[in-house]
Amino acid sequence: MIFITRRERFNAAHRLFRTDFSDEKNAEVFGKCSNPNWHGHNYELFVTIKGEVNPETGFLVNLKLLSKIIREKVTDQIDHKNINLEVPFMQGKFASTEMLAMAIWDQLETSITTLGAALHCIKLYESENNFVEYYGH
Amino acid sequence: MIFITRRERFNAAHRLFRTDFSDEKNAEVFGKCSNPNWHGHNYELFVTIKGEVNPETGFLVNLKLLSKIIREKVTDQIDHKNINLEVPFMQGKFASTEMLAMAIWDQLETSITTLGAALHCIKLYESENNFVEYYGH
Amino acid sequence: MIFITRRERFNAAHRLFRTDFSDEKNAEVFGKCSNPNWHGHNYELFVTIKGEVNPETGFLVNLKLLSKIIREKVTDQIDHKNINLEVPFMQGKFASTEMLAMAIWDQLETSITTLGAALHCIKLYESENNFVEYYGH
Amino acid sequence: MIFITRRERFNAAHRLFRTDFSDEKNAEVFGKCSNPNWHGHNYELFVTIKGEVNPETGFLVNLKLLSKIIREKVTDQIDHKNINLEVPFMQGKFASTEMLAMAIWDQLETSITTLGAALHCIKLYESENNFVEYYGH
Amino acid sequence: MIFITRRERFNAAHRLFRTDFSDEKNAEVFGKCSNPNWHGHNYELFVTIKGEVNPETGFLVNLKLLSKIIREKVTDQIDHKNINLEVPFMQGKFASTEMLAMAIWDQLETSITTLGAALHCIKLYESENNFVEYYGH
Amino acid sequence: MIFITRRERFNAAHRLFRTDFSDEKNAEVFGKCSNPNWHGHNYELFVTIKGEVNPETGFLVNLKLLSKIIREKVTDQIDHKNINLEVPFMQGKFASTEMLAMAIWDQLETSITTLGAALHCIKLYESENNFVEYYGH
Repeated sequence: MIFITRRERFNAAHRLFRTDFSDEKNAEVFGKCSNPNWHGHNYELFVTIKGEVNPETGFLVNLKLLSKIIREKVTDQIDHKNINLEVPFMQGKFASTEMLAMAIWDQLETSITTLGAALHCIKLYESENNFVEYYGH
Repeated sequence: MIFITRRERFNAAHRLFRTDFSDEKNAEVFGKCSNPNWHGHNYELFVTIKGEVNPETGFLVNLKLLSKIIREKVTDQIDHKNINLEVPFMQGKFASTEMLAMAIWDQLETSITTLGAALHCIKLYESENNFVEYYGH
Repeated sequence: MIFITRRERFNAAHRLFRTDFSDEKNAEVFGKCSNPNWHGHNYELFVTIKGEVNPETGFLVNLKLLSKIIREKVTDQIDHKNINLEVPFMQGKFASTEMLAMAIWDQLETSITTLGAALHCIKLYESENNFVEYYGH
Repeated sequence: MIFITRRERFNAAHRLFRTDFSDEKNAEVFGKCSNPNWHGHNYELFVTIKGEVNPETGFLVNLKLLSKIIREKVTDQIDHKNINLEVPFMQGKFASTEMLAMAIWDQLETSITTLGAALHCIKLYESENNFVEYYGH
Repeated sequence: MIFITRRERFNAAHRLFRTDFSDEKNAEVFGKCSNPNWHGHNYELFVTIKGEVNPETGFLVNLKLLSKIIREKVTDQIDHKNINLEVPFMQGKFASTEMLAMAIWDQLETSITTLGAALHCIKLYESENNFVEYYGH
Repeated sequence: MIFITRRERFNAAHRLFRTDFSDEKNAEVFGKCSNPNWHGHNYELFVTIKGEVNPETGFLVNLKLLSKIIREKVTDQIDHKNINLEVPFMQGKFASTEMLAMAIWDQLETSITTLGAALHCIKLYESENNFVEYYGH
């Protein structure tokens, strides 16, 4: 069993808030992250997959195919976008790093399987000081 | 003469566009950076000042004072904000990294002088692949 | 289950030695790390906690509270200090990175619980080439 | 139980190809990585070992000894070399990052045991965007 | 006047040697960098250009165009290649980082002018510990 | 003219204080950096030299020789030491990053000349947020 990680990057605007909260309540709970005029981040995404090395090719998967899947399923849909307003796979979801990591897992899990590997971990950096890891359950 | 650099960070939403352009024209000139729903970045700011070492203290300036000035004049006004809509020192300016670096210079230049040093360079990263440097003229 | 990591930094002086060893014996076992006049490091601390996402807020814990706990229990007590001489939670302990990581675990474990999460890992860098991880047992 | 990681670096030339494939077939399967004239990388190697802290010394192992073992068994044999042509422990193996990580595991496993610790993970970066992890089975 | 820097990356194999030296003499002068079987690096390239901000667009140049020029003139010709054997703009030149930085300057200088800016600096990292800067004269 | 930079690292303990100040006065002026029990840092040193490429060898200087000079003149004398108490070239000097950068310049300037190059800049990081540059005058 070998684990391979591919790093991709995207940047986006977002806001942490609940529609059933007033602006004051949102500010109290979410602080400056609830700014109604949005703020944004350079997100750094690490996708880790696992499986057996293919004896034909000497590697687990073709990293170009992995990168292509991440682009199609995730970064093309979120890069330079507003996470709350226009990212299909985040519709109706809270735009926190935690929820985003879990939504990215759901976007990728099936496609990784078609490569002959299994998704192992989604690691998502919001800043150099904060990151989230999700293992699918 | 010695040069000292202080790194500070902030994140913000922005959009590249001209109000006298149509959305199509903006998209043509500025690409996905013109997204009307905004996007955002983690900006990394390096402020370099210069001067003579103070023989009383053995340093150029007290870095805590420098950090405080950068916070008051720049990061408190822009962190977790929308650069186009709500940053006082960017009002009426184009929200590109170039213009932002120049505006930060104008915010800091006088205050640095009160520390007994001179502002030398504003270096501003928009991403790990792109940064701007401005030397004041 | 989601895992969140917060990075904090501190710098401190320390020395590796045993009081029941002579200076020669300490130098033989611990090398230049046993220098009686101390040396020091910029330590980089990664605190990973785990738990379920709170459906009310969309995140695991408020990272500001996590950061405050780390500051009160760890960095305020060790930053710009001598680990061997004046850090309360290292009294009577050997000042190695291993022992320090374990002591930081003990400082944080209970407080993390009050946030509604569980401490998962203490990762501590002494330099860009060496780091330690401790999972609590 | 504590985990300690040591980073070492080396650079080398390599090529991904199968001798039973034509140059065209190799190019099709392995892309520009199959270039018959070779290409190369700065590899970054993280060796993680685990065990109990030695109560005599306050650490798991002497990191100088760990570094010496990695140098003798791995980096002295591969640094500034051609992985396909002249690295003893890669003879007859495919020069992918996956196979390299597994071969490094085999080079180190026994020697780590003589230090009184156990090898836990080989993490190998081929570039800032791609890395492999191997846990020995 | 504003300075903008774009980072690009490539990896390649190379060898430091003189054809009029014996292998022994090459090994004596160039050390392990003269290995006849090649070695390689992940090179990190920073291209800095300078000029006035365009009042029409609010930026110096369109970074996409700059990136495209670097790709066409430099990275497409050198990435995953052997610098000594197959890089057109290095033919007949010594494959040191110094010579490579100067050759990249020559490749880019004219094209940058067509963007309405001037090439200011080529900064080229061969490893995290060594880099070269060239300002064109 | 080409510029080459070599990175070296060292860690050390230090304290900012004046012997003619009381502990209270030192604490007021230098803050927690004046802690009488010392603190410490991982310092990162970038030495930049300049000159013409040697047509015989295709490089400016042999980087191994440059690294050896930095080790002998600087890092062997300061690594794992107390800057205030036991570093010969800092005797009688204030242990700030500014003074340290200037003292390192004096240690290296003549030796660099013997390599056939000129010292251009000493850049010294005390932390990821603060660094000093000195150009010799």
